[in-house]
Amino acid sequence: MPTLYHHPMSSASRFVRLILAEYGFQADLVEEQPWEKRREFLSINPAATLPVYVDDSMRVLCGPSVLMEFLDETHGVLKRERRLLAEDPWHRAEIRRLTEWFLQKMEQDVTRPLTRERVYKLQMTAAQGGGAPDSKALRTSRANIRQHMKYLSWLAGSRQWLAGERLSYADLAAAASISVLDYLGEIEWSDFPIAKDWYQRLKSRPSFRPMLAERIRGLTPVSHYADLDF
Amino acid sequence: MPTLYHHPMSSASRFVRLILAEYGFQADLVEEQPWEKRREFLSINPAATLPVYVDDSMRVLCGPSVLMEFLDETHGVLKRERRLLAEDPWHRAEIRRLTEWFLQKMEQDVTRPLTRERVYKLQMTAAQGGGAPDSKALRTSRANIRQHMKYLSWLAGSRQWLAGERLSYADLAAAASISVLDYLGEIEWSDFPIAKDWYQRLKSRPSFRPMLAERIRGLTPVSHYADLDF
Repeated sequence: MPTLYHHPMSSASRFVRLILAEYGFQADLVEEQPWEKRREFLSINPAATLPVYVDDSMRVLCGPSVLMEFLDETHGVLKRERRLLAEDPWHRAEIRRLTEWFLQKMEQDVTRPLTRERVYKLQMTAAQGGGAPDSKALRTSRANIRQHMKYLSWLAGSRQWLAGERLSYADLAAAASISVLDYLGEIEWSDFPIAKDWYQRLKSRPSFRPMLAERIRGLTPVSHYADLDF
Repeated sequence: MPTLYHHPMSSASRFVRLILAEYGFQADLVEEQPWEKRREFLSINPAATLPVYVDDSMRVLCGPSVLMEFLDETHGVLKRERRLLAEDPWHRAEIRRLTEWFLQKMEQDVTRPLTRERVYKLQMTAAQGGGAPDSKALRTSRANIRQHMKYLSWLAGSRQWLAGERLSYADLAAAASISVLDYLGEIEWSDFPIAKDWYQRLKSRPSFRPMLAERIRGLTPVSHYADLDF
């Protein structure tokens, strides 16, 4: 069976897990802590990014955007109305723009600093940069959450799904990031009812279930995390 | 005519200019200083990334990866042996991985901090973060250049072009970043003869010519910058 190297609180890893689940793929999950820079891990992905997919012939695919394009070319293209990318090049561009928005811009503004401070530092040794969260970094990234939630609400309110009439990579990328932040109790859902309705629809999909059941050692999720009717 | 918003020292902008030139596209170049956060610019690209392409119908494409995929789907696919992406999905994945390597990893380790300290800070006001370069940031990014040049040399030495038998997006992405660093005189070519031979082949292409003729106000390039036989 193929292997997916991932981290349970990496939004890029969650994004690819959701794609695999939506397309009905099986893969062994192996948890990787990329800051450890394991020699074997660097030999398959010198960029040390997650997730990394290794197929049965030991061929390697690194990172969310390489993986999403590969999965579209080899599987999505056959899925008709369940395809997670569109057919029209302009529509594909919009799906990619939004996917990047959540996996790169929101990641940089919010998700990466928050998970670093609140999750990874718990798992790191002092030499790796572990320790108590930096309160300034927490404050800055928390201040950015509201802007991203507003943009998400605007998208969710003006379209059926974030990039149009069909569920797409854009929804899975947003939901992957949001689910990480929600685990940490960082989202004030009462302020964002439209985004909440959209997230509820995603959370109810079978592809989401395994992630809602997962728990990080030493870090209890917010009480409504796995609740479909939160 | 379409418009490309770019910055002359942004490697992502140079990458897309090279693709357009290789495919014989005309576009008006408009220089944008993204740190100014111009309202009109943010309204076409809220992520404030470069480059941004606006076509004659005012449709917008943001960022290097959205643009490279769109250009492949609408033009590359017709170019046969001059196509900058491959046909095989695994080969496409390798081209994308390397393109990301240069436009994201090398960008983060080297190109972004160096251009920020040495170019953008000259153009920024004090309120925007302008001022003298931070010597620690310069030292860190300079220390990273050698690792990236070694990887580039290894790729250039083991293949005809960086991702295989044909010129591809991977070469253009690497050359875009390298050309920015070379303008700044940051590359010790005598230590990297194989990379130099590869860069010489790229520099000699007509698509490269406009960039070699460009000069940044207040910043003279290294003497060999435009020299094809450096």
